[in-house]
Amino acid sequence: MSLRNIWLLSHGAQRHGGDPRVRALTAPILPSSSLGRALVNLSTNHYGLPKEKTSENGRVARAKVLTIDTMNPTVKNAKYAVRGPIVARAAELERELNEGMKKPFDEVIKANIGDAHAMGQQPITFFRQALAICSYPELLNDSTFPEDAKSRAYRILQSCGGNSMGSYSASQGIDSVRQDVARYIERRDGGVPSDPDNIFLTTGACDGIMTMLKLLVCGEGPTRTGIMIPIPHYPMYSATLVELAAVQVNYYLNEEKCWSVDISELKRALDEARHYCNPRALCIVNPGNPTSQVETRQCIEDVIRFAAKERLFLMADEVYQDNVYGHGCRFHSFKTVLFEMGPEYSNTMELVSFHSTSKGYMGECGFRGGYMEVINMDDEVKAELTKLLSVRLCSPVPGQALVDLVFNPPQPGEPSYDNFIKERTAILSALEEKAKLTEQVLNTVPGISCNPVQGAMFCFPRITIPEKAMIEATVRQIHQRQPDVFYCMKMLEEAGICVIPGSGFGQKEGTYHFRMTILPPIDKLQILLNKVKEFHQKFTQKYS
Amino acid sequence: MSLRNIWLLSHGAQRHGGDPRVRALTAPILPSSSLGRALVNLSTNHYGLPKEKTSENGRVARAKVLTIDTMNPTVKNAKYAVRGPIVARAAELERELNEGMKKPFDEVIKANIGDAHAMGQQPITFFRQALAICSYPELLNDSTFPEDAKSRAYRILQSCGGNSMGSYSASQGIDSVRQDVARYIERRDGGVPSDPDNIFLTTGACDGIMTMLKLLVCGEGPTRTGIMIPIPHYPMYSATLVELAAVQVNYYLNEEKCWSVDISELKRALDEARHYCNPRALCIVNPGNPTSQVETRQCIEDVIRFAAKERLFLMADEVYQDNVYGHGCRFHSFKTVLFEMGPEYSNTMELVSFHSTSKGYMGECGFRGGYMEVINMDDEVKAELTKLLSVRLCSPVPGQALVDLVFNPPQPGEPSYDNFIKERTAILSALEEKAKLTEQVLNTVPGISCNPVQGAMFCFPRITIPEKAMIEATVRQIHQRQPDVFYCMKMLEEAGICVIPGSGFGQKEGTYHFRMTILPPIDKLQILLNKVKEFHQKFTQKYS
Repeated sequence: MSLRNIWLLSHGAQRHGGDPRVRALTAPILPSSSLGRALVNLSTNHYGLPKEKTSENGRVARAKVLTIDTMNPTVKNAKYAVRGPIVARAAELERELNEGMKKPFDEVIKANIGDAHAMGQQPITFFRQALAICSYPELLNDSTFPEDAKSRAYRILQSCGGNSMGSYSASQGIDSVRQDVARYIERRDGGVPSDPDNIFLTTGACDGIMTMLKLLVCGEGPTRTGIMIPIPHYPMYSATLVELAAVQVNYYLNEEKCWSVDISELKRALDEARHYCNPRALCIVNPGNPTSQVETRQCIEDVIRFAAKERLFLMADEVYQDNVYGHGCRFHSFKTVLFEMGPEYSNTMELVSFHSTSKGYMGECGFRGGYMEVINMDDEVKAELTKLLSVRLCSPVPGQALVDLVFNPPQPGEPSYDNFIKERTAILSALEEKAKLTEQVLNTVPGISCNPVQGAMFCFPRITIPEKAMIEATVRQIHQRQPDVFYCMKMLEEAGICVIPGSGFGQKEGTYHFRMTILPPIDKLQILLNKVKEFHQKFTQKYS
Repeated sequence: MSLRNIWLLSHGAQRHGGDPRVRALTAPILPSSSLGRALVNLSTNHYGLPKEKTSENGRVARAKVLTIDTMNPTVKNAKYAVRGPIVARAAELERELNEGMKKPFDEVIKANIGDAHAMGQQPITFFRQALAICSYPELLNDSTFPEDAKSRAYRILQSCGGNSMGSYSASQGIDSVRQDVARYIERRDGGVPSDPDNIFLTTGACDGIMTMLKLLVCGEGPTRTGIMIPIPHYPMYSATLVELAAVQVNYYLNEEKCWSVDISELKRALDEARHYCNPRALCIVNPGNPTSQVETRQCIEDVIRFAAKERLFLMADEVYQDNVYGHGCRFHSFKTVLFEMGPEYSNTMELVSFHSTSKGYMGECGFRGGYMEVINMDDEVKAELTKLLSVRLCSPVPGQALVDLVFNPPQPGEPSYDNFIKERTAILSALEEKAKLTEQVLNTVPGISCNPVQGAMFCFPRITIPEKAMIEATVRQIHQRQPDVFYCMKMLEEAGICVIPGSGFGQKEGTYHFRMTILPPIDKLQILLNKVKEFHQKFTQKYS
């Protein structure tokens, strides 16, 4: 857009005169990005500040202060495919369908994000009853609410300032909630002690992970902090590392061995990274996202030994610990294994484990509840962690309340117990069934191969993309499209299925995948899988 | 602690043998900070990694990976007095009182943080009824709940994925909530249009402010981004700027003119800063925190003119917009003034305004609800902002629901209207009364002078500290104590009153203040003020 056109726009705006509100309503907004960029590039003064630009006729057109070229480059460089252009296009398609546009499908099925309730899963009644009481304590007098929901809510409210969820909590989280979490961890880990002082309540697990990464990053150039993350990985990790200007150190999960962690691969990645950065932490996601593997006890022990030997801070993302379906698979917490390895490890190894209320059987993503447990953290660092958290005051108190309920659920003999177990079992059984169905159907499709869905809520099948399709993807470089992006965009446009291309999570060069959740109700999942199958066959045919 | 002692500790730990859980329960934790620091300082290899240390007898004592010396230095350097050592000591004193220890007071009165519910303010019934329904939608069938609470809750749930607050929302926030916020802004600003696409729901206002600051920071050395903030200021700003390694550019509020913003002071600060950084944004807090001034319309217009001329991105922190008590004071939003100044400004000036559900009459801090409205933001930057927010998935949905309720409250004719108005008026009238009482009582104390509390929830009186006290503070350099820290710590220990020293917010050199909230119930506030008075007199006497 030329400066003259800009002038015309602002000139047009001024013709209205009179009431500024009328002008505001009718005035066109100054055109944005491309203009701002052009002006900034042309015209910065000796402070690097954009100067005023005078157009042909002497009128002033202001360059924007904040443009894509003058914003924080680390934010710009971060990528986050889980909510990227494919998801945006899916929302657009939904709008188009609603407006009556004809499409080759009647609905968009979103299998892009682990959002159970959005896929129709019902909340656990007990949690919601207690949360309603916490919101509106008058319900303590309502005889239709069960006594255990009332007593839990009462206890939570007693721990809130002024007995209200509307008060800030302590920066680290409500005391009694942290106590309940610690007791839960002790039960889970067969008695390994947990200290409430080591529990920090967070805004979902992301918040905890981002906070820990922020604490760990220091140094410049070749001593810049490196963080080891799995490939494929959940892109919150890489996006955060880019934002923090930390070095991402990739270790590849072994697709041939059901996406498990290989110690030799950890060693390779670490040794290479030491030439250009200071690797300080190792992130493990177990069960895996997007890869859904459940690590064996032996593997965890080997990882701990490796991290101890190599002086790495261990970050265990264990948010899918309740989501284990694979035959013979069991969740082992890093902490239990660490303590079973004896004091040589348990007294020194720095470990932080993350958990959340968003996954598991509860799937309460919207409440942004979560916690982290830090083991063997330096006391001064712990004080700094608390200070860092205190700047954002506290994590949302309704989320903290939910954390309490999830980790202190109804017990045998309490009025809500039977229904709680019934609801939980139904959800976990359905997930198990869907995990098996997904693996089974996808593996019937030539050109798709899918590891067993051992845990979590995703599958990450490998797909064969014909060469012609790869060429077409390269030709159509609209969004720097990689072959798997091209494939997934086609699947969305032709079948109405929204999945995320493997390149959003990282994958070995020359291999292609997509991530799909197993969350839709079983009948819809069946439809989805058949559509994927059909699409893949057509796609392969078209480009062969 | 010597290496020998460390060895003894770990040796002691190993003597237990047998069940690792017993060992874990009895084993002492390896000593932390000072040790870690010493070891790291002594022993980094050529990658900057700590090497293993061998003690006298050949046993290995591991240095921690993460210590105060090896953590992120920007996090370490950030200060946040609102939850600092004085507040920690207050909590300790409360515990000591509960344990029956004798103190010169019966209770600790916390006037350190704007947390209304913690001070006994009751939630607005309508908000909590609707939130309870959102949590447990079965309540839609409960005849004791009013129809308007039900219809609001129903509308919110209809906008949630799977009709559940347990779903993630869009990164920017729930569509219908953003629509309601936009309509509220239009009503507030007498018809100036607001576009829901410019509304971003945030986790309290802090989240929005931190996010915008993060977007703005770039450059190195003399082109590093500078951000202009008021002194005194709410320390979330300075803490965030330190974390982002941005340059804090101080402009001083004019205490003699009721803490108002002076354009000449803005100009001075800016001109000086341009010698060493690239000042890109100007933050204004109106009504002020901790200074409680309400800016005049003329001042706001002058600030906008200044920012436009100097090419500064404007950040207007307007979270106290409902808290205006001063005689002749009125809240003017930056946006209204901007639009009244005509298209020369309204079409180009980049402005972001922040608001929250934590303050006002609702005081719902714990829900972490908030929004920001961006005006004239570059479209590409807006897309990057959305991406940045998407990495943390979404702000808490209960907080978003509360945002909706606060900005779309009961209307005349609806069943909850009368009670809502009654509750709101009672809270705001009490705050007004408390603002006046605070100013009045403090100004009766020789050595304390307090500007009128025009708005917000704080007073920030100036205190005269006798020279002897200043010397004693300097001698007792335990926590690098400044005279006002010494004063406030004494007030806490002797009178049980918890306030925050002015140095936590910044103040002109040689002046001393403290920040105190006006939130305690009126009878308790009266007690508090009398205790402050008595303490100040005794303190002055003692050190004169």
